[in-house]
Amino acid sequence: MKTVELYDIFELRFPASKTPLAVFANEEVRKEIYGFQVSDDEYAIRFMPEMIGTWHYSVGDLTGELVVTPNTGGNHGKVVAVGCRFEYADGGRYIPVGTTCYAWTHQSPELIKQTLATLADSPFNKVRMCLFPKSMPYNRNDPERYPFLSDAEGSWDVTRPDFLFWEEFEANIAQLRDLGIEADLILFHPYDRWGFSKLTREQNLAYLDYAIRRLAAYRNIWWAIANEYDFILTKDNDDWDAFGERLQAADPYGHLISNHNGITPYPKRDWLTHCSIQTKDMVRSKYWRTSYELPIIMEEFGYEGDIEYEWGNITAFELVSRAWQAVVNGAYPTHGETYWREDEVLWWAKGGVLHGESPQRLAFLKNLLYEIGDLSAGIRSSVGQAPNGSSEESQANNDAAWFMQVMGKLSPAERINAMLNMIPPTATNENHALQYFGRSRPCFKELHLPESGTYRVEIIDAWEMTRDIALPEASGTHRLPLPAKEGIALLVTRLTGAPITHI
Amino acid sequence: MKTVELYDIFELRFPASKTPLAVFANEEVRKEIYGFQVSDDEYAIRFMPEMIGTWHYSVGDLTGELVVTPNTGGNHGKVVAVGCRFEYADGGRYIPVGTTCYAWTHQSPELIKQTLATLADSPFNKVRMCLFPKSMPYNRNDPERYPFLSDAEGSWDVTRPDFLFWEEFEANIAQLRDLGIEADLILFHPYDRWGFSKLTREQNLAYLDYAIRRLAAYRNIWWAIANEYDFILTKDNDDWDAFGERLQAADPYGHLISNHNGITPYPKRDWLTHCSIQTKDMVRSKYWRTSYELPIIMEEFGYEGDIEYEWGNITAFELVSRAWQAVVNGAYPTHGETYWREDEVLWWAKGGVLHGESPQRLAFLKNLLYEIGDLSAGIRSSVGQAPNGSSEESQANNDAAWFMQVMGKLSPAERINAMLNMIPPTATNENHALQYFGRSRPCFKELHLPESGTYRVEIIDAWEMTRDIALPEASGTHRLPLPAKEGIALLVTRLTGAPITHI
Repeated sequence: MKTVELYDIFELRFPASKTPLAVFANEEVRKEIYGFQVSDDEYAIRFMPEMIGTWHYSVGDLTGELVVTPNTGGNHGKVVAVGCRFEYADGGRYIPVGTTCYAWTHQSPELIKQTLATLADSPFNKVRMCLFPKSMPYNRNDPERYPFLSDAEGSWDVTRPDFLFWEEFEANIAQLRDLGIEADLILFHPYDRWGFSKLTREQNLAYLDYAIRRLAAYRNIWWAIANEYDFILTKDNDDWDAFGERLQAADPYGHLISNHNGITPYPKRDWLTHCSIQTKDMVRSKYWRTSYELPIIMEEFGYEGDIEYEWGNITAFELVSRAWQAVVNGAYPTHGETYWREDEVLWWAKGGVLHGESPQRLAFLKNLLYEIGDLSAGIRSSVGQAPNGSSEESQANNDAAWFMQVMGKLSPAERINAMLNMIPPTATNENHALQYFGRSRPCFKELHLPESGTYRVEIIDAWEMTRDIALPEASGTHRLPLPAKEGIALLVTRLTGAPITHI
Repeated sequence: MKTVELYDIFELRFPASKTPLAVFANEEVRKEIYGFQVSDDEYAIRFMPEMIGTWHYSVGDLTGELVVTPNTGGNHGKVVAVGCRFEYADGGRYIPVGTTCYAWTHQSPELIKQTLATLADSPFNKVRMCLFPKSMPYNRNDPERYPFLSDAEGSWDVTRPDFLFWEEFEANIAQLRDLGIEADLILFHPYDRWGFSKLTREQNLAYLDYAIRRLAAYRNIWWAIANEYDFILTKDNDDWDAFGERLQAADPYGHLISNHNGITPYPKRDWLTHCSIQTKDMVRSKYWRTSYELPIIMEEFGYEGDIEYEWGNITAFELVSRAWQAVVNGAYPTHGETYWREDEVLWWAKGGVLHGESPQRLAFLKNLLYEIGDLSAGIRSSVGQAPNGSSEESQANNDAAWFMQVMGKLSPAERINAMLNMIPPTATNENHALQYFGRSRPCFKELHLPESGTYRVEIIDAWEMTRDIALPEASGTHRLPLPAKEGIALLVTRLTGAPITHI
């Protein structure tokens, strides 16, 4: 009898002349699992069990029994979306703080090894990475292998995978998995000189089928349909929807699915499990969260670096500050690094080593989040808070009423724009409130805590990575001195009494 | 025979029982000028001649002759709008770099004197200031005098000016004029505890008539109808239009008229001579400039300071950086300062002395602009420039075509949003191109200068106030090393050949 750990891969291999279909069933569930070709005369079937106990399987005449044992160690299963946050399949906490290494698997074995070593020492628990190779400045080298072989005319033959490419690629996925890192796998992107972006829809669906059958059993796979879907002129939303629907229908495990934008976030769809949004407008994540009602990952809000492109030359301070802004607006940040190098090995594309100052600060932020818990559910509304202390209408302490009247005169779009920028964003959960001031640097804060309860108030310096307890046990209103510098956050922790809804 | 210098004030005073109407005429022009009450039994008529030579005047039976001599020294007449820029009436260069001291005239004589001394040593050539007193945090003191006296019920009687208030107020206007500073006079604002914001439309028009008749002869007057019109709930656009039309019709000299917003810029109107826009979205000034076809002054994009409100606690670096962004997007910046002080004398409201680090940097910027000339006319379009070096469509050096296709798929609003943020903004005039990188900090720039011409290229550090000549005499394409820090600008000066349309 065969055994496998929950969420691990159970694989069968056998000679076959066409794609086999397996059935895995226990007393509650029956799953149909397609096989895929692994060599000229061999097929494999991969199954990721999501329930412990005994499963029966059959592939044609072949039958067998599989005992699934409980998960152990760092194995928590796939990541799933729950409301506006994520968690592991086994209920374990997962808060994404990812990075971007688009083409790290397309580099030399030595460089791949170095990238994995760097990742092992980094805070990052997700990597945005491409399946197809990448052609762009600083991405001029050809990979050793491609996902498909060419036909006699030199066109890609999607029915003939390069088996060695896939073996090596999935080994990299497994290495990430073993480091506890999710593979946010980009299936299409615009930066192509080999013709992968010009396949027909049918060819693309065949490619997706192969990728799903081969890779979906890896618990750390996320399907990132495109990088910058709206920059890919050879496809339209009908294509993206076809791909999203195929992934949703054909992936037996329902891995996460996103579709990342260049400019305009992809519209809400049934198959969309979370948003992967490119923007520098960090405060708007609060708006996306409300309109999508899905987890929001802010990808590509600028890379720490100094190359010639504006998306790749912000300071570490700015990247860290934007990451904090993502968090206090209920979203999740993603890192990237693009320091110019003579050898053109930039982390954002090829991996290698990190040169910047942001990763350790993102580690500090990530550790804080894992300590205090997810903050995506309780984003404080700005409504009801006047941006100034006073106005013609507000002399009798009715600033809020005045502000509501001002807001009431605006169109919905104007109102969103106006409110997003007025109040320092604050996120809360049952026991905590986290406010981040960004490039605002007040010298004090009027703190309004509930009278009936006690709260600890910490002043956090996001850059210096310090946490100072300013008020160990406070209630009611306090005029709290602040250091009047950029990059300061306030963390309020409930000790007794009511949860904090705002500060 | 009386003489007066061009653009100076010619004043007549005489006893009268009702408002006198004077006629001033020369061979080309005839102006009707209303008088105003200066004491219980005396009226004045003030006339600002805008042509030299002999004028004849009459007020009822009284007639006289006035010889207007040429302007001298720092007297260049009123500021006028020409396209998207300003100039003085005599054609002299005027590029606004203003500051904000809302209530400086409502303070003690000692503080007023100190404010004027500070202004005299500052780079600022415009002051945003209120006629009515201001009620707001850090603005809790009552002024000595108000524009009107109260009636028996304690309501303001707009037919009974407090003459001493106006004498003192106009003395302050004159002091600014003598320092070469424009008085950007805010006529209405929301921050009121005395009832000035609750006058009827008829009362407000009577107030405007008095202000116009008394103050319009000061060449340095600008009419700023409101501070934050959309935060004043007691008035609507019909009121603002009535005020704008009255100012346009009743001011014999056609001083500049604006209407400053809290959130939504006031719509284009015939009486609007320029835009006074509150926003932190500096790159959008390029858009406003195109849609209004008027000069754009970015007021209140954050004040250097450390008070509790997000509009009043940015660093000097951030303020200076936003000012440069305004300039390279074809607009004009305005300074403000809000450092917390125990005595509540904050520059932005009460004047006094400056504590910050931005004024000297704004002086550096202003001096540069006066050296190279206005930049509002030649804002480079981002269209045709790809934000990346490469894409599926762009392998044959057709990045621009690819980018245009991407942009072509967007709605106009999406396109504006997308393009505003992609390319480092650059402004040009006949002899110069100025590009500012802001918080981008590239380590090099691919510079594309015309082949047939020679150009000087300077690297400017906006914070350190340095200008280094990187290329004394260049043509064609250069890979120019840059210092890879924030706050860097490039200035290209044409020595020979064609004007620079982009860099």
